[in-house]
Amino acid sequence: MVVLKGAEVSAKIKAQVQKELMDLGDRLPKLAIVRVGENPDDLSYERGAMKKMESFGLRAETFPYPADISHENFKQEFQKINDDPDVAGILLLCPLPKQIREKEIKEIIAPDKDLDGISPVNIAKVFAGDETGFAPCTAEAVIQVLKKNKISISGKRAVIVGRSLLVGKPLAMLLLKENATVTVCHTRTTDMPKVCREAEILIAAAGKAKLLSREYVASGAVVIDVGINVDDEGKLCGDVDFESIQETAAMATPVPGGVGAVTTAVLADHLVRAAKIQKQNRGH
Amino acid sequence: MVVLKGAEVSAKIKAQVQKELMDLGDRLPKLAIVRVGENPDDLSYERGAMKKMESFGLRAETFPYPADISHENFKQEFQKINDDPDVAGILLLCPLPKQIREKEIKEIIAPDKDLDGISPVNIAKVFAGDETGFAPCTAEAVIQVLKKNKISISGKRAVIVGRSLLVGKPLAMLLLKENATVTVCHTRTTDMPKVCREAEILIAAAGKAKLLSREYVASGAVVIDVGINVDDEGKLCGDVDFESIQETAAMATPVPGGVGAVTTAVLADHLVRAAKIQKQNRGH
Repeated sequence: MVVLKGAEVSAKIKAQVQKELMDLGDRLPKLAIVRVGENPDDLSYERGAMKKMESFGLRAETFPYPADISHENFKQEFQKINDDPDVAGILLLCPLPKQIREKEIKEIIAPDKDLDGISPVNIAKVFAGDETGFAPCTAEAVIQVLKKNKISISGKRAVIVGRSLLVGKPLAMLLLKENATVTVCHTRTTDMPKVCREAEILIAAAGKAKLLSREYVASGAVVIDVGINVDDEGKLCGDVDFESIQETAAMATPVPGGVGAVTTAVLADHLVRAAKIQKQNRGH
Repeated sequence: MVVLKGAEVSAKIKAQVQKELMDLGDRLPKLAIVRVGENPDDLSYERGAMKKMESFGLRAETFPYPADISHENFKQEFQKINDDPDVAGILLLCPLPKQIREKEIKEIIAPDKDLDGISPVNIAKVFAGDETGFAPCTAEAVIQVLKKNKISISGKRAVIVGRSLLVGKPLAMLLLKENATVTVCHTRTTDMPKVCREAEILIAAAGKAKLLSREYVASGAVVIDVGINVDDEGKLCGDVDFESIQETAAMATPVPGGVGAVTTAVLADHLVRAAKIQKQNRGH
Protein backbone atom coordinates (compact mmCIF):
# COMPACT_ATOMS: atom_id res chain seq x y z
CA MET A 1 0.00 0.00 0.00
CA VAL A 2 1.24 3.46 -0.91
CA VAL A 3 1.13 5.93 1.98
CA LEU A 4 -0.16 9.31 0.80
CA LYS A 5 1.80 11.82 2.87
CA GLY A 6 0.24 15.15 3.68
CA ALA A 7 3.60 16.91 3.71
CA GLU A 8 4.16 16.22 0.02
CA VAL A 9 0.75 17.60 -0.93
CA SER A 10 1.34 20.60 1.33
CA ALA A 11 4.69 21.29 -0.40
CA LYS A 12 2.95 21.35 -3.79
CA ILE A 13 0.32 23.76 -2.51
CA LYS A 14 3.11 25.90 -1.03
CA ALA A 15 4.72 26.25 -4.46
CA GLN A 16 1.36 27.42 -5.89
CA VAL A 17 0.81 29.85 -3.03
CA GLN A 18 4.26 31.31 -3.48
CA LYS A 19 3.51 32.05 -7.13
CA GLU A 20 0.19 33.69 -6.27
CA LEU A 21 1.89 35.78 -3.60
CA MET A 22 4.01 37.47 -6.25
CA ASP A 23 0.88 39.04 -7.74
CA LEU A 24 0.14 40.68 -4.41
CA GLY A 25 3.24 42.85 -4.14
CA ASP A 26 4.97 43.60 -0.86
CA ARG A 27 2.01 43.40 1.46
CA LEU A 28 1.81 39.92 3.01
CA PRO A 29 -1.77 38.82 3.70
CA LYS A 30 -2.70 38.34 7.33
CA LEU A 31 -4.80 35.57 8.85
CA ALA A 32 -6.83 36.25 11.98
CA ILE A 33 -7.49 33.16 14.08
CA VAL A 34 -10.41 33.85 16.39
CA ARG A 35 -10.68 31.55 19.40
CA VAL A 36 -13.03 31.61 22.38
CA GLY A 37 -11.83 29.60 25.40
CA GLU A 38 -9.00 27.09 25.59
CA ASN A 39 -10.42 23.95 23.98
CA PRO A 40 -7.43 21.60 23.40
CA ASP A 41 -8.61 20.76 19.84
CA ASP A 42 -8.80 24.46 19.03
CA LEU A 43 -5.35 25.11 20.51
CA SER A 44 -3.88 22.24 18.54
CA TYR A 45 -5.43 23.42 15.25
CA GLU A 46 -4.34 26.97 16.01
CA ARG A 47 -0.71 25.88 16.56
CA GLY A 48 -0.74 23.95 13.29
CA ALA A 49 -2.23 26.87 11.38
CA MET A 50 0.23 29.40 12.89
CA LYS A 51 3.20 27.20 12.00
CA LYS A 52 1.91 26.63 8.49
CA MET A 53 1.37 30.36 7.80
CA GLU A 54 4.88 31.05 9.03
CA SER A 55 6.41 28.35 6.85
CA PHE A 56 4.45 29.68 3.84
CA GLY A 57 5.69 33.21 4.54
CA LEU A 58 2.28 34.55 5.54
CA ARG A 59 1.22 36.61 8.54
CA ALA A 60 -1.07 35.27 11.25
CA GLU A 61 -2.40 36.60 14.52
CA THR A 62 -4.46 34.92 17.21
CA PHE A 63 -7.41 36.74 18.76
CA PRO A 64 -8.21 34.79 21.94
CA TYR A 65 -11.26 35.56 24.11
CA PRO A 66 -12.29 34.19 27.49
CA ALA A 67 -14.70 31.24 27.42
CA ASP A 68 -17.34 33.26 29.26
CA ILE A 69 -17.38 36.33 26.98
CA SER A 70 -20.94 37.52 26.37
CA HIS A 71 -22.56 37.23 22.96
CA GLU A 72 -22.78 41.01 22.55
CA ASN A 73 -19.15 41.63 23.49
CA PHE A 74 -17.89 38.85 21.28
CA LYS A 75 -19.99 40.02 18.35
CA GLN A 76 -18.56 43.52 18.73
CA GLU A 77 -14.98 42.22 18.88
CA PHE A 78 -15.58 39.93 15.91
CA GLN A 79 -17.03 42.77 13.88
CA LYS A 80 -13.85 44.82 14.48
CA ILE A 81 -11.66 42.00 13.13
CA ASN A 82 -14.08 41.50 10.26
CA ASP A 83 -13.89 45.19 9.32
CA ASP A 84 -10.10 45.51 9.73
CA PRO A 85 -8.62 46.09 6.24
CA ASP A 86 -5.33 44.59 7.44
CA VAL A 87 -7.05 41.23 8.05
CA ALA A 88 -7.35 39.36 4.73
CA GLY A 89 -8.90 36.21 6.13
CA ILE A 90 -10.54 34.84 9.25
CA LEU A 91 -10.51 31.40 10.81
CA LEU A 92 -13.19 31.16 13.50
CA LEU A 93 -12.60 28.13 15.70
CA CYS A 94 -15.93 26.39 16.23
CA PRO A 95 -18.03 25.29 18.01
CA LEU A 96 -18.30 28.46 20.10
CA PRO A 97 -19.47 28.37 23.75
CA LYS A 98 -23.23 28.09 24.19
CA GLN A 99 -23.89 31.69 25.22
CA ILE A 100 -22.70 32.86 21.80
CA ARG A 101 -25.21 32.63 18.96
CA GLU A 102 -22.86 31.01 16.47
CA LYS A 103 -25.33 31.29 13.59
CA GLU A 104 -25.42 35.07 13.95
CA ILE A 105 -21.62 35.28 13.84
CA LYS A 106 -21.50 33.06 10.75
CA GLU A 107 -23.96 35.41 9.07
CA ILE A 108 -21.86 38.53 9.67
CA ILE A 109 -18.48 37.18 8.56
CA ALA A 110 -17.51 38.85 5.28
CA PRO A 111 -17.81 36.15 2.59
CA ASP A 112 -14.51 37.25 1.01
CA LYS A 113 -12.68 36.76 4.35
CA ASP A 114 -14.49 33.55 5.26
CA LEU A 115 -11.61 31.14 4.57
CA ASP A 116 -13.34 28.07 6.04
CA GLY A 117 -16.63 28.55 4.19
CA ILE A 118 -18.95 28.97 7.18
CA SER A 119 -21.09 31.85 5.85
CA PRO A 120 -24.40 31.14 4.06
CA VAL A 121 -23.03 32.81 0.91
CA ASN A 122 -20.08 30.43 0.71
CA ILE A 123 -22.18 27.40 1.65
CA ALA A 124 -24.60 28.24 -1.18
CA LYS A 125 -21.68 28.66 -3.60
CA VAL A 126 -20.17 25.29 -2.71
CA PHE A 127 -23.61 23.76 -3.16
CA ALA A 128 -23.94 25.39 -6.58
CA GLY A 129 -20.42 24.38 -7.65
CA ASP A 130 -19.47 28.07 -7.92
CA GLU A 131 -15.70 28.21 -7.45
CA THR A 132 -15.63 31.88 -6.48
CA GLY A 133 -16.62 30.79 -2.96
CA PHE A 134 -14.55 29.19 -0.21
CA ALA A 135 -15.21 25.55 0.63
CA PRO A 136 -14.40 24.30 4.13
CA CYS A 137 -10.63 23.69 4.17
CA THR A 138 -10.85 20.06 5.31
CA ALA A 139 -13.27 19.13 2.52
CA GLU A 140 -11.06 20.81 -0.05
CA ALA A 141 -7.97 19.16 1.45
CA VAL A 142 -9.39 15.76 0.47
CA ILE A 143 -9.72 16.90 -3.14
CA GLN A 144 -6.16 18.25 -3.04
CA VAL A 145 -4.77 14.95 -1.71
CA LEU A 146 -6.37 13.19 -4.67
CA LYS A 147 -5.40 15.75 -7.30
CA LYS A 148 -1.83 16.34 -6.21
CA ASN A 149 -1.31 12.56 -6.20
CA LYS A 150 -2.82 12.39 -9.70
CA ILE A 151 -5.61 10.07 -8.59
CA SER A 152 -8.42 10.44 -11.12
CA ILE A 153 -11.85 11.24 -9.66
CA SER A 154 -14.12 11.53 -12.70
CA GLY A 155 -16.44 8.55 -13.10
CA LYS A 156 -15.12 6.94 -9.92
CA ARG A 157 -17.29 5.70 -7.09
CA ALA A 158 -16.62 7.75 -4.01
CA VAL A 159 -18.10 6.86 -0.64
CA ILE A 160 -18.04 9.35 2.23
CA VAL A 161 -18.61 8.13 5.76
CA GLY A 162 -20.07 11.07 7.68
CA ARG A 163 -22.59 13.79 6.81
CA SER A 164 -21.32 16.80 8.76
CA LEU A 165 -21.76 20.35 7.57
CA LEU A 166 -18.00 20.90 7.68
CA VAL A 167 -16.78 17.80 5.86
CA GLY A 168 -19.24 15.16 4.64
CA LYS A 169 -21.79 17.39 2.89
CA PRO A 170 -19.45 19.93 1.26
CA LEU A 171 -17.11 17.13 0.23
CA ALA A 172 -20.03 15.40 -1.50
CA MET A 173 -20.58 18.61 -3.50
CA LEU A 174 -16.87 18.97 -4.38
CA LEU A 175 -16.64 15.32 -5.48
CA LEU A 176 -19.78 15.69 -7.61
CA LYS A 177 -18.20 18.70 -9.26
CA GLU A 178 -15.23 16.46 -10.10
CA ASN A 179 -17.69 14.02 -11.69
CA ALA A 180 -17.44 11.26 -9.11
CA THR A 181 -20.49 9.12 -8.36
CA VAL A 182 -20.95 9.98 -4.70
CA THR A 183 -22.49 8.02 -1.84
CA VAL A 184 -22.86 9.44 1.66
CA CYS A 185 -23.29 7.03 4.54
CA HIS A 186 -23.62 7.60 8.27
CA THR A 187 -24.63 6.07 11.60
CA ARG A 188 -28.05 5.04 10.25
CA THR A 189 -26.66 3.27 7.18
CA THR A 190 -27.57 -0.41 6.90
CA ASP A 191 -24.57 -2.73 6.31
CA MET A 192 -21.97 0.01 6.15
CA PRO A 193 -19.05 -2.34 5.34
CA LYS A 194 -20.86 -3.43 2.17
CA VAL A 195 -21.58 0.16 1.10
CA CYS A 196 -17.98 1.16 1.78
CA ARG A 197 -16.66 -1.74 -0.28
CA GLU A 198 -18.36 -0.18 -3.32
CA ALA A 199 -15.88 2.68 -3.06
CA GLU A 200 -12.95 3.20 -5.36
CA ILE A 201 -12.28 6.28 -3.25
CA LEU A 202 -13.29 5.91 0.39
CA ILE A 203 -13.35 8.97 2.65
CA ALA A 204 -13.62 8.52 6.39
CA ALA A 205 -15.10 11.56 8.12
CA ALA A 206 -17.09 9.89 10.87
CA GLY A 207 -15.17 11.17 13.88
CA LYS A 208 -14.89 7.71 15.42
CA ALA A 209 -11.51 6.14 16.17
CA LYS A 210 -10.58 3.21 13.91
CA LEU A 211 -14.20 2.70 12.78
CA LEU A 212 -13.21 1.51 9.30
CA SER A 213 -11.24 -1.72 9.23
CA ARG A 214 -10.32 -4.13 6.49
CA GLU A 215 -13.85 -5.36 5.82
CA TYR A 216 -14.84 -1.82 4.77
CA VAL A 217 -12.20 -1.52 2.07
CA ALA A 218 -12.38 -2.97 -1.44
CA SER A 219 -9.21 -4.34 -2.92
CA GLY A 220 -7.36 -1.53 -4.67
CA ALA A 221 -9.31 1.32 -3.08
CA VAL A 222 -7.87 4.71 -2.21
CA VAL A 223 -8.60 5.58 1.42
CA ILE A 224 -8.58 9.15 2.71
CA ASP A 225 -8.84 9.54 6.46
CA VAL A 226 -10.17 12.86 7.73
CA GLY A 227 -10.62 11.70 11.33
CA ILE A 228 -8.49 12.99 14.20
CA ASN A 229 -9.15 10.96 17.34
CA VAL A 230 -7.29 9.65 20.36
CA ASP A 231 -7.17 5.86 20.76
CA ASP A 232 -7.38 3.79 23.97
CA GLU A 233 -3.66 4.24 24.55
CA GLY A 234 -3.92 8.02 24.25
CA LYS A 235 -2.32 8.07 20.81
CA LEU A 236 -3.56 10.16 17.88
CA CYS A 237 -5.41 8.08 15.30
CA GLY A 238 -7.84 8.42 12.40
CA ASP A 239 -11.23 6.94 11.60
CA VAL A 240 -9.47 4.15 9.74
CA ASP A 241 -7.72 1.18 11.34
CA PHE A 242 -4.61 1.89 9.27
CA GLU A 243 -2.72 -1.34 10.05
CA SER A 244 -5.63 -3.56 9.08
CA ILE A 245 -6.01 -2.18 5.54
CA GLN A 246 -2.38 -2.46 4.42
CA GLU A 247 -3.01 -5.55 2.29
CA THR A 248 -6.30 -4.34 0.86
CA ALA A 249 -6.10 -0.65 0.02
CA ALA A 250 -3.94 0.59 -2.85
CA MET A 251 -3.23 3.92 -1.17
CA ALA A 252 -4.15 5.59 2.10
CA THR A 253 -3.45 8.72 4.12
CA PRO A 254 -2.01 8.20 7.62
CA VAL A 255 -3.10 10.02 10.81
CA PRO A 256 -1.17 12.02 11.84
CA GLY A 257 0.74 13.15 8.77
CA GLY A 258 -2.12 12.98 6.28
CA VAL A 259 -5.08 15.25 5.59
CA GLY A 260 -4.38 17.52 8.60
CA ALA A 261 -1.21 19.00 7.09
CA VAL A 262 -3.08 19.62 3.83
CA THR A 263 -5.99 21.37 5.57
CA THR A 264 -3.74 24.17 6.87
CA ALA A 265 -2.06 24.40 3.45
CA VAL A 266 -5.50 24.91 1.88
CA LEU A 267 -6.15 27.56 4.56
CA ALA A 268 -2.98 29.37 3.40
CA ASP A 269 -4.09 29.09 -0.21
CA HIS A 270 -7.51 30.52 0.69
CA LEU A 271 -5.81 33.38 2.55
CA VAL A 272 -3.86 34.41 -0.54
CA ARG A 273 -6.95 34.03 -2.75
CA ALA A 274 -8.91 36.20 -0.31
CA ALA A 275 -6.21 38.88 -0.39
CA LYS A 276 -6.30 38.85 -4.19
CA ILE A 277 -10.10 39.21 -4.29
CA GLN A 278 -9.93 42.11 -1.82
CA LYS A 279 -7.16 43.79 -3.81
CA GLN A 280 -9.27 43.52 -6.97
CA ASN A 281 -12.35 44.90 -5.19
CA ARG A 282 -10.35 47.86 -3.87
CA GLY A 283 -9.17 48.48 -7.41
CA HIS A 284 -12.70 49.11 -8.65
CA MET B 1 -46.63 -2.70 -9.29
CA VAL B 2 -48.45 -0.10 -7.23
CA VAL B 3 -48.89 3.23 -9.03
CA LEU B 4 -48.20 6.13 -6.67
CA LYS B 5 -50.64 8.82 -7.76
CA GLY B 6 -49.74 12.44 -7.24
CA ALA B 7 -53.37 13.44 -6.76
CA GLU B 8 -53.67 11.36 -3.60
CA VAL B 9 -50.55 12.89 -2.09
CA SER B 10 -51.75 16.34 -3.12
CA ALA B 11 -55.12 15.74 -1.39
CA LYS B 12 -53.33 14.88 1.86
CA ILE B 13 -51.21 18.04 1.62
CA LYS B 14 -54.39 20.02 0.91
CA ALA B 15 -55.94 18.79 4.16
CA GLN B 16 -52.81 19.96 6.06
CA VAL B 17 -52.80 23.32 4.31
CA GLN B 18 -56.46 23.87 5.11
CA LYS B 19 -55.73 23.35 8.80
CA GLU B 20 -52.80 25.76 8.71
CA LEU B 21 -54.95 28.34 6.92
CA MET B 22 -57.24 28.53 9.91
CA ASP B 23 -54.42 30.01 12.00
CA LEU B 24 -54.10 32.83 9.52
CA GLY B 25 -57.55 34.35 9.92
CA ASP B 26 -59.51 35.90 7.07
CA ARG B 27 -56.65 37.11 4.96
CA LEU B 28 -55.84 34.53 2.26
CA PRO B 29 -52.13 34.43 1.35
CA LYS B 30 -51.25 35.49 -2.16
CA LEU B 31 -48.73 33.89 -4.49
CA ALA B 32 -46.93 36.01 -7.08
CA ILE B 33 -45.78 34.08 -10.14
CA VAL B 34 -43.10 36.07 -11.92
CA ARG B 35 -42.52 35.13 -15.54
CA VAL B 36 -40.31 36.69 -18.21
CA GLY B 37 -41.20 35.73 -21.78
CA GLU B 38 -43.52 32.98 -22.98
CA ASN B 39 -41.51 29.78 -22.56
CA PRO B 40 -44.01 26.87 -22.97
CA ASP B 41 -42.58 25.03 -19.93
CA ASP B 42 -43.05 28.16 -17.83
CA LEU B 43 -46.60 28.66 -19.11
CA SER B 44 -47.47 25.04 -18.37
CA TYR B 45 -46.06 25.21 -14.84
CA GLU B 46 -47.81 28.54 -14.30
CA ARG B 47 -51.18 27.08 -15.33
CA GLY B 48 -50.68 24.13 -12.99
CA ALA B 49 -49.71 26.40 -10.10
CA MET B 50 -52.64 28.79 -10.68
CA LYS B 51 -55.13 25.91 -10.76
CA LYS B 52 -53.65 24.37 -7.64
CA MET B 53 -53.78 27.62 -5.65
CA GLU B 54 -57.40 28.06 -6.66
CA SER B 55 -58.33 24.52 -5.68
CA PHE B 56 -56.54 24.99 -2.33
CA GLY B 57 -58.45 28.24 -1.74
CA LEU B 58 -55.38 30.46 -2.05
CA ARG B 59 -54.82 33.63 -4.06
CA ALA B 60 -52.41 33.81 -6.99
CA GLU B 61 -51.44 36.46 -9.49
CA THR B 62 -49.18 36.27 -12.52
CA PHE B 63 -46.66 39.03 -13.20
CA PRO B 64 -45.60 38.54 -16.83
CA TYR B 65 -42.82 40.59 -18.45
CA PRO B 66 -41.67 40.75 -22.07
CA ALA B 67 -38.75 38.47 -22.97
CA ASP B 68 -36.58 41.47 -23.84
CA ILE B 69 -37.04 43.45 -20.61
CA SER B 70 -33.74 44.97 -19.47
CA HIS B 71 -31.99 43.77 -16.33
CA GLU B 72 -32.45 47.10 -14.56
CA ASN B 73 -36.16 47.35 -15.38
CA PHE B 74 -36.83 43.79 -14.37
CA LYS B 75 -34.89 44.18 -11.14
CA GLN B 76 -36.95 47.25 -10.28
CA GLU B 77 -40.22 45.45 -11.03
CA PHE B 78 -39.13 42.40 -9.09
CA GLN B 79 -38.18 44.53 -6.10
CA LYS B 80 -41.68 46.02 -6.03
CA ILE B 81 -43.28 42.57 -5.88
CA ASN B 82 -40.71 41.51 -3.30
CA ASP B 83 -41.57 44.51 -1.10
CA ASP B 84 -45.37 44.27 -1.51
CA PRO B 85 -46.81 43.25 1.88
CA ASP B 86 -49.82 41.72 0.09
CA VAL B 87 -47.53 39.18 -1.61
CA ALA B 88 -46.80 36.33 0.81
CA GLY B 89 -44.73 34.23 -1.56
CA ILE B 90 -42.95 34.41 -4.90
CA LEU B 91 -42.40 31.83 -7.59
CA LEU B 92 -39.80 33.08 -10.08
CA LEU B 93 -39.89 31.00 -13.26
CA CYS B 94 -36.29 30.20 -14.25
CA PRO B 95 -34.10 30.24 -16.21
CA LEU B 96 -34.47 33.94 -17.01
CA PRO B 97 -33.43 35.38 -20.40
CA LYS B 98 -29.70 35.96 -20.75
CA GLN B 99 -29.73 39.76 -20.40
CA ILE B 100 -31.01 39.37 -16.84
CA ARG B 101 -28.42 38.59 -14.18
CA GLU B 102 -30.37 35.78 -12.52
CA LYS B 103 -27.90 35.44 -9.65
CA GLU B 104 -28.52 39.04 -8.61
CA ILE B 105 -32.29 38.50 -8.58
CA LYS B 106 -31.90 35.33 -6.50
CA GLU B 107 -29.87 37.31 -4.00
CA ILE B 108 -32.52 39.99 -3.51
CA ILE B 109 -35.57 37.75 -3.11
CA ALA B 110 -36.73 37.92 0.52
CA PRO B 111 -35.84 34.52 2.06
CA ASP B 112 -39.24 34.36 3.79
CA LYS B 113 -41.05 34.77 0.44
CA ASP B 114 -38.71 32.50 -1.50
CA LEU B 115 -41.07 29.53 -1.84
CA ASP B 116 -38.86 27.56 -4.24
CA GLY B 117 -35.65 27.94 -2.22
CA ILE B 118 -33.54 29.82 -4.76
CA SER B 119 -31.93 32.37 -2.41
CA PRO B 120 -28.50 31.67 -0.88
CA VAL B 121 -30.05 31.82 2.60
CA ASN B 122 -32.51 29.02 1.82
CA ILE B 123 -29.91 26.97 -0.06
CA ALA B 124 -27.60 27.17 2.96
CA LYS B 125 -30.45 26.14 5.26
CA VAL B 126 -31.35 23.11 3.16
CA PHE B 127 -27.67 22.17 3.14
CA ALA B 128 -27.53 22.49 6.92
CA GLY B 129 -30.76 20.54 7.42
CA ASP B 130 -32.37 23.63 8.98
CA GLU B 131 -36.13 23.23 8.47
CA THR B 132 -36.90 26.93 8.88
CA GLY B 133 -35.83 27.38 5.25
CA PHE B 134 -37.67 26.56 2.03
CA ALA B 135 -36.38 23.65 -0.05
CA PRO B 136 -37.06 23.63 -3.79
CA CYS B 137 -40.65 22.39 -4.20
CA THR B 138 -39.81 19.53 -6.55
CA ALA B 139 -37.18 18.11 -4.21
CA GLU B 140 -39.58 18.31 -1.29
CA ALA B 141 -42.36 16.79 -3.40
CA VAL B 142 -40.29 13.59 -3.67
CA ILE B 143 -40.06 13.38 0.13
CA GLN B 144 -43.81 14.00 0.39
CA VAL B 145 -44.62 11.21 -2.09
CA LEU B 146 -42.62 8.82 0.09
CA LYS B 147 -43.95 10.03 3.44
CA LYS B 148 -47.61 10.31 2.49
CA ASN B 149 -47.43 6.78 1.08
CA LYS B 150 -45.80 5.63 4.35
CA ILE B 151 -42.67 4.42 2.58
CA SER B 152 -39.90 4.34 5.17
CA ILE B 153 -36.74 6.22 4.23
CA SER B 154 -34.45 5.81 7.24
CA GLY B 155 -31.61 3.37 6.63
CA LYS B 156 -32.73 2.80 3.03
CA ARG B 157 -30.45 3.08 0.01
CA ALA B 158 -31.59 5.96 -2.13
CA VAL B 159 -30.08 6.63 -5.54
CA ILE B 160 -30.70 9.94 -7.30
CA VAL B 161 -30.03 10.21 -11.03
CA GLY B 162 -29.20 13.87 -11.69
CA ARG B 163 -27.20 16.47 -9.80
CA SER B 164 -29.04 19.71 -10.56
CA LEU B 165 -29.22 22.61 -8.16
CA LEU B 166 -33.02 22.47 -8.19
CA VAL B 167 -33.58 18.75 -7.67
CA GLY B 168 -30.64 16.35 -7.40
CA LYS B 169 -28.50 18.21 -4.89
CA PRO B 170 -31.20 19.52 -2.53
CA LEU B 171 -32.96 16.15 -2.65
CA ALA B 172 -29.71 14.49 -1.57
CA MET B 173 -29.70 16.79 1.47
CA LEU B 174 -33.38 16.12 2.29
CA LEU B 175 -32.91 12.36 1.99
CA LEU B 176 -29.81 12.49 4.21
CA LYS B 177 -31.87 14.35 6.79
CA GLU B 178 -34.36 11.45 6.65
CA ASN B 179 -31.42 9.10 7.34
CA ALA B 180 -31.26 7.46 3.92
CA THR B 181 -27.90 6.33 2.56
CA VAL B 182 -27.73 8.53 -0.51
CA THR B 183 -25.95 8.06 -3.84
CA VAL B 184 -25.97 10.70 -6.57
CA CYS B 185 -25.20 9.63 -10.12
CA HIS B 186 -25.11 11.57 -13.38
CA THR B 187 -23.95 11.54 -16.98
CA ARG B 188 -20.37 10.73 -15.99
CA THR B 189 -21.30 7.75 -13.83
CA THR B 190 -19.72 4.45 -14.85
CA ASP B 191 -22.22 1.58 -15.24
CA MET B 192 -25.28 3.53 -14.20
CA PRO B 193 -27.68 0.57 -14.40
CA LYS B 194 -25.61 -1.25 -11.78
CA VAL B 195 -25.50 1.77 -9.46
CA CYS B 196 -29.26 2.27 -9.85
CA ARG B 197 -29.95 -1.35 -9.04
CA GLU B 198 -28.45 -0.73 -5.57
CA ALA B 199 -31.43 1.53 -4.87
CA GLU B 200 -34.33 0.63 -2.64
CA ILE B 201 -35.61 4.09 -3.52
CA LEU B 202 -34.67 5.28 -7.01
CA ILE B 203 -35.24 8.88 -8.01
CA ALA B 204 -35.01 9.89 -11.65
CA ALA B 205 -34.18 13.55 -12.10
CA ALA B 206 -32.02 13.40 -15.19
CA GLY B 207 -34.23 15.30 -17.61
CA LYS B 208 -33.91 12.65 -20.31
CA ALA B 209 -36.97 10.87 -21.70
CA LYS B 210 -37.28 7.19 -20.68
CA LEU B 211 -33.59 6.99 -19.68
CA LEU B 212 -34.24 4.46 -16.91
CA SER B 213 -35.59 1.12 -18.09
CA ARG B 214 -35.97 -2.24 -16.43
CA GLU B 215 -32.25 -2.97 -16.13
CA TYR B 216 -31.89 0.08 -13.84
CA VAL B 217 -34.44 -1.12 -11.31
CA ALA B 218 -33.88 -3.69 -8.57
CA SER B 219 -36.71 -6.05 -7.80
CA GLY B 220 -38.98 -4.45 -5.22
CA ALA B 221 -37.63 -0.92 -5.61
CA VAL B 222 -39.70 2.24 -5.22
CA VAL B 223 -39.24 4.47 -8.27
CA ILE B 224 -39.97 8.21 -8.17
CA ASP B 225 -39.90 9.97 -11.52
CA VAL B 226 -39.22 13.71 -11.45
CA GLY B 227 -38.72 14.02 -15.21
CA ILE B 228 -41.11 15.88 -17.49
CA ASN B 229 -40.20 15.27 -21.13
CA VAL B 230 -41.86 14.81 -24.47
CA ASP B 231 -41.31 11.47 -26.22
CA ASP B 232 -40.82 10.78 -29.95
CA GLU B 233 -44.59 10.72 -30.46
CA GLY B 234 -45.02 14.12 -28.83
CA LYS B 235 -46.50 12.64 -25.65
CA LEU B 236 -45.57 13.72 -22.13
CA CYS B 237 -43.29 11.21 -20.42
CA GLY B 238 -40.88 10.92 -17.52
CA ASP B 239 -37.23 9.90 -17.16
CA VAL B 240 -38.41 6.35 -16.51
CA ASP B 241 -39.64 3.90 -19.13
CA PHE B 242 -42.76 3.23 -17.07
CA GLU B 243 -44.06 0.22 -19.01
CA SER B 244 -40.75 -1.62 -18.82
CA ILE B 245 -40.50 -1.59 -15.01
CA GLN B 246 -43.99 -2.92 -14.20
CA GLU B 247 -42.75 -6.40 -13.31
CA THR B 248 -39.68 -5.20 -11.43
CA ALA B 249 -40.53 -2.17 -9.32
CA ALA B 250 -42.78 -2.50 -6.28
CA MET B 251 -44.13 1.04 -6.66
CA ALA B 252 -43.64 3.93 -9.06
CA THR B 253 -44.97 7.39 -9.84
CA PRO B 254 -46.41 7.93 -13.34
CA VAL B 255 -45.77 10.94 -15.61
CA PRO B 256 -48.05 12.79 -15.92
CA GLY B 257 -50.02 12.35 -12.71
CA GLY B 258 -47.10 11.83 -10.37
CA VAL B 259 -44.60 14.19 -8.78
CA GLY B 260 -45.79 17.24 -10.76
CA ALA B 261 -49.12 17.46 -8.95
CA VAL B 262 -47.30 17.18 -5.64
CA THR B 263 -44.82 19.94 -6.51
CA THR B 264 -47.57 22.56 -6.79
CA ALA B 265 -49.18 21.22 -3.60
CA VAL B 266 -45.85 21.75 -1.83
CA LEU B 267 -45.77 25.25 -3.32
CA ALA B 268 -49.18 25.91 -1.72
CA ASP B 269 -47.92 24.55 1.59
CA HIS B 270 -44.87 26.81 1.39
CA LEU B 271 -47.12 29.78 0.64
CA VAL B 272 -49.13 29.25 3.80
CA ARG B 273 -45.95 28.66 5.84
CA ALA B 274 -44.50 31.89 4.42
CA ALA B 275 -47.65 33.82 5.37
CA LYS B 276 -47.43 32.43 8.91
CA ILE B 277 -43.77 33.42 9.26
CA GLN B 278 -44.55 36.94 8.00
CA LYS B 279 -47.50 37.25 10.37
CA GLN B 280 -45.28 36.23 13.30
CA ASN B 281 -42.57 38.70 12.25
CA ARG B 282 -45.11 41.51 12.02
CA GLY B 283 -46.28 40.58 15.51
CA HIS B 284 -42.87 41.39 17.00
